[in-house]
Amino acid sequence: MHKFDIHILGCGSALPTTRHLPSTQIVDVRDKLFMIDCAEGCQLQLRRSQLKFSRMNHIFISHLHGDHCFGLIGLISTFDLLGRTSQLHIYSPDSTLENLMRPWLDFFCRDMGYEVVFHAFSPNHSEVIYDDRSLTVSTIPLKHRVPCCGFLFREKAPLPHIRRDMIDFLHIPYYAINSIKEGNGWTDENGRLWTTEELTVAPSAPARSYAYCSDTMPVGKVAEMVHGVDVLYHEATFASDAKARARETGHSTAAQAAEIAAQAEARRLVIGHFSARYDDESVLLKEAKAAFPHTLLAHEGMKIEV
Amino acid sequence: MHKFDIHILGCGSALPTTRHLPSTQIVDVRDKLFMIDCAEGCQLQLRRSQLKFSRMNHIFISHLHGDHCFGLIGLISTFDLLGRTSQLHIYSPDSTLENLMRPWLDFFCRDMGYEVVFHAFSPNHSEVIYDDRSLTVSTIPLKHRVPCCGFLFREKAPLPHIRRDMIDFLHIPYYAINSIKEGNGWTDENGRLWTTEELTVAPSAPARSYAYCSDTMPVGKVAEMVHGVDVLYHEATFASDAKARARETGHSTAAQAAEIAAQAEARRLVIGHFSARYDDESVLLKEAKAAFPHTLLAHEGMKIEV
Repeated sequence: MHKFDIHILGCGSALPTTRHLPSTQIVDVRDKLFMIDCAEGCQLQLRRSQLKFSRMNHIFISHLHGDHCFGLIGLISTFDLLGRTSQLHIYSPDSTLENLMRPWLDFFCRDMGYEVVFHAFSPNHSEVIYDDRSLTVSTIPLKHRVPCCGFLFREKAPLPHIRRDMIDFLHIPYYAINSIKEGNGWTDENGRLWTTEELTVAPSAPARSYAYCSDTMPVGKVAEMVHGVDVLYHEATFASDAKARARETGHSTAAQAAEIAAQAEARRLVIGHFSARYDDESVLLKEAKAAFPHTLLAHEGMKIEV
Repeated sequence: MHKFDIHILGCGSALPTTRHLPSTQIVDVRDKLFMIDCAEGCQLQLRRSQLKFSRMNHIFISHLHGDHCFGLIGLISTFDLLGRTSQLHIYSPDSTLENLMRPWLDFFCRDMGYEVVFHAFSPNHSEVIYDDRSLTVSTIPLKHRVPCCGFLFREKAPLPHIRRDMIDFLHIPYYAINSIKEGNGWTDENGRLWTTEELTVAPSAPARSYAYCSDTMPVGKVAEMVHGVDVLYHEATFASDAKARARETGHSTAAQAAEIAAQAEARRLVIGHFSARYDDESVLLKEAKAAFPHTLLAHEGMKIEV
């Protein structure tokens, strides 16, 4: 099966502690690295992870709170020091981030050897913001104190395997193979259409998906959007005894995160974005597991195979 | 003796590694904390050091390269989250830093519970930028690729101790004591002036000093300015075999740092701002010690008692 891993570089909330760094993750799909959020100090975590900086060309910022983007300027500078030449694409809600970053880039990163390209997306509706041969990334509108979106990474359905016996039997030429795999079938010299189903077998690996939902209050529509997701990362800043506080600050409790996972019929739930008030998150895990047994606590250095 | 400690939070150069963080120090004078430079991630180092965030009201920025100031925005935010109410004073060359920081503060730190006050100093001449009852901080113009100053922390000469026997003998009233200590002596009822020297003994502790010189090429005038300093922190980015590279990039070699320390007749030299190319800085230490034996290598977590 192709690589589809999540690396947790930070899973604390706004206040960095010696136990948790703020939100940053790397999604590694077939050795292409995608960063989600970019907290202060995440470049060091990235270095510790031994993932290759040069394989990362896309950064998705969920929202413009400092604990989700203060690491950008340092990361961008370091990439330049390391001799980067390829474009770096940064996606964020609206165009505010670019307006804030430009003067800093102009001053601190004059004469950079590569280009930073900003992409604004609307925080109000879901849209596909990245698309390649094997993957799409789409936004998940969330509900927080400021415009905020999560991200849904979805593998494209792998193409079916060609049936060698049929190809040989029908003398199908090589150039027609891709078209057959893509569903167009093949018409023989007698004008008979052989369907793709007749000429192929279903792929062994199903398409997988990962959803990142942070920061957010619980939103029923999110459960619909990520329905059937393999791994759901959902923020669980507080335990239920701080439900009012969670509501006030635009966050979720562990029980609420678990409810969303259950509604979404996710395969697994990973909770994170823990408030600094918890020295031990087992209370959050216990609470989430009561509603959704397949729950894991995020931690720095964690790797999740989707 | 009163506390006068230097805490090294980071002593690497621009590229953060798993061994060194970029430049940040805390000077602790009688439990007042002063920060010198503010690199990305230094707030975590500060937390690890267990120094009290609330005791820090002044930050001195040597120059506007990212590895010396990218930690400011995160530190300022964190102070707010921690409920800070007292002003935070930030000193830097010219007014560029304030111009860069204001839009970020306005956006990310709306409704902050405390005020950030920026102070610009000229990078071209030395001036006193901080002064209290026991300490002055003055700038040391350095020579780097951009305007840059080091900082000289100098305790004020402690006042002499009063001679109780003389006070009793002459029936000197209590209100006159401070004036005598400050050098004005005392005139008795017969009009005779008793000098401060006659009425006091010299203080036991001498005034101490600490100089931070980074980033810079070796500058003879710096040695004059910090003459007799107790502890000199001087950058030593490279070893002598990279002297040309040091010159090109506006840095010093370990041998050059040692020469400055020798010219300055410093008591001790601490070298830092190590290039990421050195996995082991003993080559730098050896080189510096050849010219100035009382040399130490900086390291993260190091505490130096001045």
